[in-house]
Amino acid sequence: MPTPLDQLNANRDAAVDRLTALLRIPSVSTDPAYASDVNAAADWVADHLRASGLDARIMPTAGHPVVYAATTDDQVTNPDAPRLLFYGHYDVQPPDPIDKWTTPPFEPTVRDGSLYARGASDDKGQIMCFLEALRAYHDAAPGSASKLPCHVTVLIEGEEECGSVNLPAFIEQYEDLLRADVAVVSDTSMWDAHTPAITYALRGLLYFDIQLHGPSRDLHSGVYGGTIPNPATILTQVLGNLFDENHRVTIPGYYDHVQPLTDDERQLWQRLAFNERNYLNAIGLAQGFGETGYTTLERRWSRPACDINGLYGGYGGEGAKTVIPSFAGAKVSFRLAADQQPDHIADAFNQWLNDQPTHGLTWKITEHGRAYPAAVPTDSPWIAAASKAIEHAAGRPPVLVREGATIPVIGDFKRLLDLDSLLIGFGLNGDNIHSPDEHLGLDRFHLGCQTHAALLQQIANTP
Amino acid sequence: MPTPLDQLNANRDAAVDRLTALLRIPSVSTDPAYASDVNAAADWVADHLRASGLDARIMPTAGHPVVYAATTDDQVTNPDAPRLLFYGHYDVQPPDPIDKWTTPPFEPTVRDGSLYARGASDDKGQIMCFLEALRAYHDAAPGSASKLPCHVTVLIEGEEECGSVNLPAFIEQYEDLLRADVAVVSDTSMWDAHTPAITYALRGLLYFDIQLHGPSRDLHSGVYGGTIPNPATILTQVLGNLFDENHRVTIPGYYDHVQPLTDDERQLWQRLAFNERNYLNAIGLAQGFGETGYTTLERRWSRPACDINGLYGGYGGEGAKTVIPSFAGAKVSFRLAADQQPDHIADAFNQWLNDQPTHGLTWKITEHGRAYPAAVPTDSPWIAAASKAIEHAAGRPPVLVREGATIPVIGDFKRLLDLDSLLIGFGLNGDNIHSPDEHLGLDRFHLGCQTHAALLQQIANTP
Repeated sequence: MPTPLDQLNANRDAAVDRLTALLRIPSVSTDPAYASDVNAAADWVADHLRASGLDARIMPTAGHPVVYAATTDDQVTNPDAPRLLFYGHYDVQPPDPIDKWTTPPFEPTVRDGSLYARGASDDKGQIMCFLEALRAYHDAAPGSASKLPCHVTVLIEGEEECGSVNLPAFIEQYEDLLRADVAVVSDTSMWDAHTPAITYALRGLLYFDIQLHGPSRDLHSGVYGGTIPNPATILTQVLGNLFDENHRVTIPGYYDHVQPLTDDERQLWQRLAFNERNYLNAIGLAQGFGETGYTTLERRWSRPACDINGLYGGYGGEGAKTVIPSFAGAKVSFRLAADQQPDHIADAFNQWLNDQPTHGLTWKITEHGRAYPAAVPTDSPWIAAASKAIEHAAGRPPVLVREGATIPVIGDFKRLLDLDSLLIGFGLNGDNIHSPDEHLGLDRFHLGCQTHAALLQQIANTP
Repeated sequence: MPTPLDQLNANRDAAVDRLTALLRIPSVSTDPAYASDVNAAADWVADHLRASGLDARIMPTAGHPVVYAATTDDQVTNPDAPRLLFYGHYDVQPPDPIDKWTTPPFEPTVRDGSLYARGASDDKGQIMCFLEALRAYHDAAPGSASKLPCHVTVLIEGEEECGSVNLPAFIEQYEDLLRADVAVVSDTSMWDAHTPAITYALRGLLYFDIQLHGPSRDLHSGVYGGTIPNPATILTQVLGNLFDENHRVTIPGYYDHVQPLTDDERQLWQRLAFNERNYLNAIGLAQGFGETGYTTLERRWSRPACDINGLYGGYGGEGAKTVIPSFAGAKVSFRLAADQQPDHIADAFNQWLNDQPTHGLTWKITEHGRAYPAAVPTDSPWIAAASKAIEHAAGRPPVLVREGATIPVIGDFKRLLDLDSLLIGFGLNGDNIHSPDEHLGLDRFHLGCQTHAALLQQIANTP
């Protein structure tokens, strides 16, 4: 009887074909036009779990559904083994700008050993690593001999790319269905193409749409220019106040609770020999920029950030249109460092906006998501088990890293289920996630499948 | 023999019928679908001039043609009389949204004493005032007795509503055909329904598209946030520096050449009793805003303005997308006050942009139009002549006003032909120009015809 790892090695192409099928479904969660595709992706994932012998369910939320499955005692070699909760998401970012893709975003194409498609790396390619590991256990053993070495609960949501707004309520509602000993999340990156990593801390996220409203209609800028508050002009003045000369956010209290960087971490990170020039070259920049007093890696991993993600209002087409817009807006988001409180920062930002001079213009503020930052202890037995699994599959041990991005569920698992998470991912910074030509190296996809198969065994061995 | 004013009084209905015929032609200049209609309108105007005894020509440009006519010495009572150059445009704005019109835009209809149609006020109704005045001189005197009191050159273009892009080249090419002593432009408004006005100054216009470019693609704001210069963030910081706390533009030298407002003008404008509350109420605002030290009317008529006409870049759709945009842009325009030099301001703005800290991001700056401000002396004999003509026709003297908007040809006449312009118009702010249900009061149309007839006589008498 082949081992699950043998099974994975012998069926690489079939696994890639299944991933390709999932990538063809344009499950863009933020745009209602794709709602039926989002449902189709959930169905596809549930069907894959059922083909692996699990009793998968599509569970509704106020938004897009969750795909859920959990082992029963008779599906596990040792019913007393620990329970691993696997989390991922089947939804994807919008593909815009579509004309910048070399091949269409929902027609997966292999080039130079990588699979190109929206979601290839974030996160369909990564959830399929875990789902293929489960399948390998099922396919390696015939019929009733098919058992997993530890308990597994699978939770795959469809709203990660639009802020996971309904997931906290889902977790609270189904707390009993989600009890586990450790969570495993595969939505992060390797340190580099040869060095796997375990991520032990993530930043949180707050996202706002802020609009400044003024005249009841667009106005002729010749007739009215200079006499009334122009919403686009005043918006830039307000946003221009958001940073001081050290590129620190000026919102009162913004840095109050930020977990300070320790000397130990600073030294560990220096040893990682982060290649800043490569990091910048890869995105066409010659120089970095950020908060004074920190290196690029420190800013990314341990400091909060604030970004304008979009600007809109008035005329943005070709040529000239001499209007004063009736309103202007911006998408403004905050990446929260460990121990920053989303509620506190959201209140402080709202207060700050309302304290800005707007000369009679009025705010329309909409919040799109509130995610807690997360940091787990680096000396836990789960991290030891994951390290062993990675070393087994990759032939070398992982490095311990943080990430600047956000996986809202990590904070929710901790807060609502008191559950620590292992972040084991196979992406790379060059995967163009959220951008045109997103892709995943097929060698990393295979490494991910093998690692998760080994991880199930290591979790089973954890006391 | 009837006077030209008698002739106009006796034939009001025929003049309205002719205006109606011209308004039936959908001469929308910006839309190629209407090209043959634009030509038909030019032909119609040329035919009308010929019926008035003038040798009209259709003169091609790189775009839509110009209708041109000029008196010869034998057509003028006194061949040594001054020459008046009349300017207007026979093209119209698109009629969209068509479903908002009470009656179809190209089926002129009289309601409550006003004629409703696209172009009724802007500018067919206004050019017909002048063309009917010419016709009245012709029809009042039989055969060879038909002479005009002064020389007249007629220049009616077909591209005003799409930026008059080919007109400056036309003026340069036909400089000799366009020599005149004074220009008369009928494309402005009365002060109110009972008070005619002469507009003696307009603001100029500079329009820029400025883009700040950074990373080679949109980036994930979690992975990169806080470590690189965000084009949208830096753009707002730059634009936030554009005004000081008195809402004065901070570009060095920006106010250097602005013609100061005189005490006389301030007092004259106070006597106009501008109703600021009505002005703001009509656009849904409770308060005005602008440069410290000036009233709303002073800001609008005599001070330069700078407006952001549009903001774009990154994600502007519904919901959230956590990108750092690869670039962000703004449309930025300047309304130039009298004596401000467009070349000087354009250079100063470019310099100012390049002096702003952009942290390695680069500018892409595109200019879309450069129009000179215009101001003619209020003590000129031409204004005196026009005032007399208006008083004769309206029974009350005009007020002297400025306008905040721009008519590029006024600056071109001054720059290329050293020609001052009289702006005598019969529109009202409530005429819905560029909007559905555009209209012109027939009493104002008749007043315009009479005024121009009287003006020709007054110009003849000007030493």
